[in-house]
Amino acid sequence: MRTQVAIIGAGPSGLLLGQLLARQGIDNVIIERRSPDYVLGRIRAGVLEQGMVDLLDEAGVTERLHREGLVHDGFSIAFGGGRHRIDLKGLTGGKTVTVYGQTEVTQDLMEARSALGATSFYEADDVALHDFDGTSPLVSFSLNGVRHELACDFIAGCDGFHGMSRKSVPAGAIQEFERVYPFGWLGLLADVPPAEHELVYANSERGFALCSMRSMTRSRYYVQVSLDEHVEDWSDERFFEELRRRLPDDVATKVTAGPSIEKSIAPLRSFVAEPMRFGRLFLAGDAAHIVPPTGAKGLNLAASDIHYLSHGLAEYYGDGSMAGLDAYSSRALARIWKAERFSWWMTTVLHRFTDTPFDRKIQRAELDYVASSETARAALAENYVGLPY
Amino acid sequence: MRTQVAIIGAGPSGLLLGQLLARQGIDNVIIERRSPDYVLGRIRAGVLEQGMVDLLDEAGVTERLHREGLVHDGFSIAFGGGRHRIDLKGLTGGKTVTVYGQTEVTQDLMEARSALGATSFYEADDVALHDFDGTSPLVSFSLNGVRHELACDFIAGCDGFHGMSRKSVPAGAIQEFERVYPFGWLGLLADVPPAEHELVYANSERGFALCSMRSMTRSRYYVQVSLDEHVEDWSDERFFEELRRRLPDDVATKVTAGPSIEKSIAPLRSFVAEPMRFGRLFLAGDAAHIVPPTGAKGLNLAASDIHYLSHGLAEYYGDGSMAGLDAYSSRALARIWKAERFSWWMTTVLHRFTDTPFDRKIQRAELDYVASSETARAALAENYVGLPY
Repeated sequence: MRTQVAIIGAGPSGLLLGQLLARQGIDNVIIERRSPDYVLGRIRAGVLEQGMVDLLDEAGVTERLHREGLVHDGFSIAFGGGRHRIDLKGLTGGKTVTVYGQTEVTQDLMEARSALGATSFYEADDVALHDFDGTSPLVSFSLNGVRHELACDFIAGCDGFHGMSRKSVPAGAIQEFERVYPFGWLGLLADVPPAEHELVYANSERGFALCSMRSMTRSRYYVQVSLDEHVEDWSDERFFEELRRRLPDDVATKVTAGPSIEKSIAPLRSFVAEPMRFGRLFLAGDAAHIVPPTGAKGLNLAASDIHYLSHGLAEYYGDGSMAGLDAYSSRALARIWKAERFSWWMTTVLHRFTDTPFDRKIQRAELDYVASSETARAALAENYVGLPY
Repeated sequence: MRTQVAIIGAGPSGLLLGQLLARQGIDNVIIERRSPDYVLGRIRAGVLEQGMVDLLDEAGVTERLHREGLVHDGFSIAFGGGRHRIDLKGLTGGKTVTVYGQTEVTQDLMEARSALGATSFYEADDVALHDFDGTSPLVSFSLNGVRHELACDFIAGCDGFHGMSRKSVPAGAIQEFERVYPFGWLGLLADVPPAEHELVYANSERGFALCSMRSMTRSRYYVQVSLDEHVEDWSDERFFEELRRRLPDDVATKVTAGPSIEKSIAPLRSFVAEPMRFGRLFLAGDAAHIVPPTGAKGLNLAASDIHYLSHGLAEYYGDGSMAGLDAYSSRALARIWKAERFSWWMTTVLHRFTDTPFDRKIQRAELDYVASSETARAALAENYVGLPY
């Protein structure tokens, strides 16, 4: 087999890249270790920056998104007994975010790919990347015990943090930066109306809480928990009781409890691998970087990577220029580090740490500054809606 | 002896308070442990916020300041080989800072106090504060071996971090917050023209450096050093060589070396004591809080304390209301913590720490964000010129 671009991973990064390339006549094949149902079953992020919505428009997959997605003009931060709205639209000259689940994005992209008739291999075993340091890379994999080889011009590693694309790079060629936070998020998904029509982030004495949603009938709630907590110890009842205790009264009274569809504990991590290009292998999305979810940046960063990468590939296949591909890693990383900074900051100011009394006072001063300064809120807002590509 | 307000300490806080009170007909006495020459010999800050200049105007001591002070519309931050100007005036709707040494402020205030004929006792020994938890506080002290007692309505503790005002408060009544940074500033004062007409803050691979000034013929330079350095090991020649290596070329070439008038190493510390009021004792300035000098906030915070305190006292002597004095501590602390946050942030982003590679990347991302976002620069600028009183 031969293709122009071999894409490893059928998550939103890989699917979006495949879609953008296919629409420009660039042949591509997706190789995914899991089944389509497994991929769709993962509950992930749900807040899309305008830049990502624009990119999905460019990919032609937003018919349902524009019908079902919820445009949010702001969100609020609760601390010290008060609640402070961040007027995203007013503070950024009209920019907003769109609430639309990652699962929905993935499904829309999968359907669009099927409609195009583009090739995807799911449940591929023993995926291995070869010769990407030369001009003729190759991807080998097994399907139902039969070995296959896919020759290509480029490989896009879109297989997430635990994927093998990053692990295929010689250790000496890659530098990793990491912070692991001393707590996790216990998340619960339920088919109940959200407490508020906008997101509410709360820094309470009992820890962080977040009221989020996937639609006006599906709520997503989170509470900060220590890393030694077990999800089995958290009944839905206990979860909702703890959630309400961390929210301002006016929000807590509006929380509708309901049976969980999904409940899990996720650790919080910041991670970046540099560079993101190794010969003809390009890493994108979680394969190269992880942000803690507090700033809602993970999926959006994957989208900006794909923006840079798809433009680089289109340039190559258009006029033979490697300029866009050569610039990919540094362009993507410049934006990634700003989002890493923002996600680290949001995490640091909103969670309870076992740190010094001085650190807690500084945290409170950060929040007081945000509450009292329109300029501080504007800085928060411009990061939340997404810095320019 | 009897007065209305006993002021402990003849630094800028105490002198400014005395002057503001005296001009409103409120009798006050200053008691200072050191001699006038000792007080004037201390080399301290030199960047005044507009709010402090306004307060000095109110005190009627700015005739020389307006003649000799240098109004600065901006400063610059150098890192990663580039230099980025923070246009204070443009970003804050016209606000600026004024370069005028703390020594000059102190001298102007001393002369004004002499002209008023207000009482100051210098070189007072064994100063002790009594009965400030009741309605008749008393200050005792010795002059040339003779014991004196000063009865008063209120005591203002303006005697700095090492002074005895804060130490007079029972330990259980006061909460202290502190961070000690793992480095110091080696500062050098010389009668040479400054390299630039505005301040230059530099974050270099070799550590922080700052080009500051007191006038167009007197420069103040700093380099970050480890806490085990000794000033004796730093010849003027070595200092200027190290300074130049930390500055961008275009600035380094304009540094004029010259013999030091003063050279010393100061540790960097963040410190806040809460509350700032204990019965009829009010702490102000360094007696209650210390900031690392990176944000140029120490002297300016002392001024805002004195603003709140002088208004509270004027209100009391005007119509007998304790409202302003009752609100003093919380009003002052709200502003102090925002300045503590800013000073901590400026220190954190501009110095070299022995921290993790991830932390260094986040530091660089903060600086890149400031360089690329006008909103981020506006937030920096509004803090640098001083948040509203």
